[in-house]
Amino acid sequence: MQEYLSRAKAACANLSQTSGRLRNEVLREMARALRTERISIMEANKKDLEYAKANNLSAAMVDRLMLDEKRINGMAESIETIASLIDPLGRTLDGWTLPNGLMVQKVSIPIGVIGVIYESRPNVTSDTAALCFKSGNVVVLKGGKEAINSNFTIADVLRGVLDKFGLPKEIISMLPDASREGVMQLVKMDRYVDLIIPRGGESLIRAVCDNATVPVVKHDKGVCHIYVDKYANIDNALKIAINAKVQRPGVCNSMETLLVDESIAASALPLFKAEFDKFSTKLKGCAKTQEIINVAEASEDDFYLEYGDNILNIKVVDGVKEAVAHITKYGSGHSDAIISDSYQNTEFFLNAVDSACVYVNASTRFTDGGEFGFGAEVGISTNKLHSRGPMGVNDLTTYKYKVFGSGQIRE
Amino acid sequence: MQEYLSRAKAACANLSQTSGRLRNEVLREMARALRTERISIMEANKKDLEYAKANNLSAAMVDRLMLDEKRINGMAESIETIASLIDPLGRTLDGWTLPNGLMVQKVSIPIGVIGVIYESRPNVTSDTAALCFKSGNVVVLKGGKEAINSNFTIADVLRGVLDKFGLPKEIISMLPDASREGVMQLVKMDRYVDLIIPRGGESLIRAVCDNATVPVVKHDKGVCHIYVDKYANIDNALKIAINAKVQRPGVCNSMETLLVDESIAASALPLFKAEFDKFSTKLKGCAKTQEIINVAEASEDDFYLEYGDNILNIKVVDGVKEAVAHITKYGSGHSDAIISDSYQNTEFFLNAVDSACVYVNASTRFTDGGEFGFGAEVGISTNKLHSRGPMGVNDLTTYKYKVFGSGQIRE
Repeated sequence: MQEYLSRAKAACANLSQTSGRLRNEVLREMARALRTERISIMEANKKDLEYAKANNLSAAMVDRLMLDEKRINGMAESIETIASLIDPLGRTLDGWTLPNGLMVQKVSIPIGVIGVIYESRPNVTSDTAALCFKSGNVVVLKGGKEAINSNFTIADVLRGVLDKFGLPKEIISMLPDASREGVMQLVKMDRYVDLIIPRGGESLIRAVCDNATVPVVKHDKGVCHIYVDKYANIDNALKIAINAKVQRPGVCNSMETLLVDESIAASALPLFKAEFDKFSTKLKGCAKTQEIINVAEASEDDFYLEYGDNILNIKVVDGVKEAVAHITKYGSGHSDAIISDSYQNTEFFLNAVDSACVYVNASTRFTDGGEFGFGAEVGISTNKLHSRGPMGVNDLTTYKYKVFGSGQIRE
Repeated sequence: MQEYLSRAKAACANLSQTSGRLRNEVLREMARALRTERISIMEANKKDLEYAKANNLSAAMVDRLMLDEKRINGMAESIETIASLIDPLGRTLDGWTLPNGLMVQKVSIPIGVIGVIYESRPNVTSDTAALCFKSGNVVVLKGGKEAINSNFTIADVLRGVLDKFGLPKEIISMLPDASREGVMQLVKMDRYVDLIIPRGGESLIRAVCDNATVPVVKHDKGVCHIYVDKYANIDNALKIAINAKVQRPGVCNSMETLLVDESIAASALPLFKAEFDKFSTKLKGCAKTQEIINVAEASEDDFYLEYGDNILNIKVVDGVKEAVAHITKYGSGHSDAIISDSYQNTEFFLNAVDSACVYVNASTRFTDGGEFGFGAEVGISTNKLHSRGPMGVNDLTTYKYKVFGSGQIRE
């Protein structure tokens, strides 16, 4: 593993010498190669699908695994989008001149070697490889074992393009040992790896964080809230709440708990129940909620859960302060919204809720690299440091200071 | 420890509701209080000095420990400087409007609870507490045991001021268990602590990085280089090299290795030797260097060392590419300089050397928060992520996205 990663590290030097134009040219060639090699990719994918069926994986999982011409074309288009983004490298982030004449420039540069750990969907392989390549980083990919044939074939196609351009294939590396032990080795290789991005279940992320000596930017769970304030426009509140829960309940930016101000609970809760019933959402409520509408009981533990399903907790709170206190205690710092027409209450909520994305009068479902306008996303960080919220190519860079002198020495 | 840290975490909410004006007022009162309480601080310091003498600590260590009226006044002035800095919180770092009308604002906020581990000098206690308070962070301080009486007394004075303003004393916390085991517990408390900043020896930093589940921004060693190019102005090169090695050999931004282009080695090396001899610098050289000047042999291992002393390695290299390769292999990514009048060579060096600060025609000694114009510094980060190089108050912040809507839902 060490030998393998040291070659990945060595490839950084080659990559850092490429121009943005060359990197975009390589990316467009990668998109072409995916289309050209679609048959062999689908053949590899067939093996994964057979394995999935033999092992009784769920229909949802099989669907995520499956690649057809349309999906492979989608992967190619995604790489073309990434090629069209502005170069994230060499941006002057700040700059100033010191009294002694030294000119300081803070300039964006690649992070180095990034290890990405992810699950099932094979398009993540090409997306992640392309995003890391665009931002001048060497990537070490570790996909789910159920997609291993698809992932290796896709990576081989992309590596073939690197080779054609005279670039080292190690720029896109696949972790040689894809077992849990292999991952635990990877996250300790701080001499060779500069960042680990784990995407996946809680136990994987916990294991990575507990064992890593490499910095980790985690893509963890989303326990998102919508607070309906006393001063809410109820039509907006209904529309936004339905969107945040029902449009795609399985994703991390969907709502898990609806908080409703006490003073409007009696009139508003029946309206919410009627709306959610149309979508067969399973509702659970606190004691006060249960006094007003007929729903199951939400336990203390329920408020910590990311259901990933069409289930919703409802809690009645005594104003915006209790709403914030609830979010601080039970939330995961992902995305939370207030629905209100009050200047004071929205300002208080925006400042007091410490989440990556805090919304006023909008659905939490917008926490997404594409929606934010980043063109493509690495994921949604629940870290507090380095990157928070949707991560685009700029979030795959760090910086250095260039200092221009004319003989200055320190007195 | 858990109970103690949970109270520190709880204090974040109080602190995040303070205005910049209030925080500056508290800081100025802290400066006054340090001056008023100087006698009791010096008395506590006396105990530390007695312990130091009884345990035969070095004269340099005793000097670092010692507090007199002048030094306490310096600590107070430093806090006043921090009070006068622009508020690092609530800065709009970026902002844009999405096609659907959502307005996205990226705003700076505090990190939360920061654990700082440091050594001997007691002024670090007040500096660090003030920097964290200025940036809205709760701090958990862990100073060296040789300064324990001074540190606790200084912290008590500052905590008294918090209390006077009705703020929780936990905003400035002292780690209750200051043993190595206590530190190892602290760095695993990711539920309560958001960042660890270790300043100190290599073994401490290694132990912290190996054990931490909390993100770490380390303040590690500096193996800094100056490369004298074929196209260098030799007078500049001599002046800068002397400054970088001799002015303060014990600090992390001083030079450890001088790299000299082969084509000028025969003429330049005797000049460097004559200059360094004036300052009694102990010179070690590679085989080629030894052919030209009479110096001791520099071993392979020497090139990895941070001497922290008036000792210098010299190596002859075959141009800027070999210089960069040497720095990449032996350097610590701290600060490196090229002395050259060649546009191509300086550009190549600036881009190819992956260090926090890369200099042209200036001394590496400028890598410093004060010199960079940050007003005060937390330290010099050798991390690649979150913060690199000199860290000022802005580096003690992270960000969130505020998103302003008018009923938007995701299609």
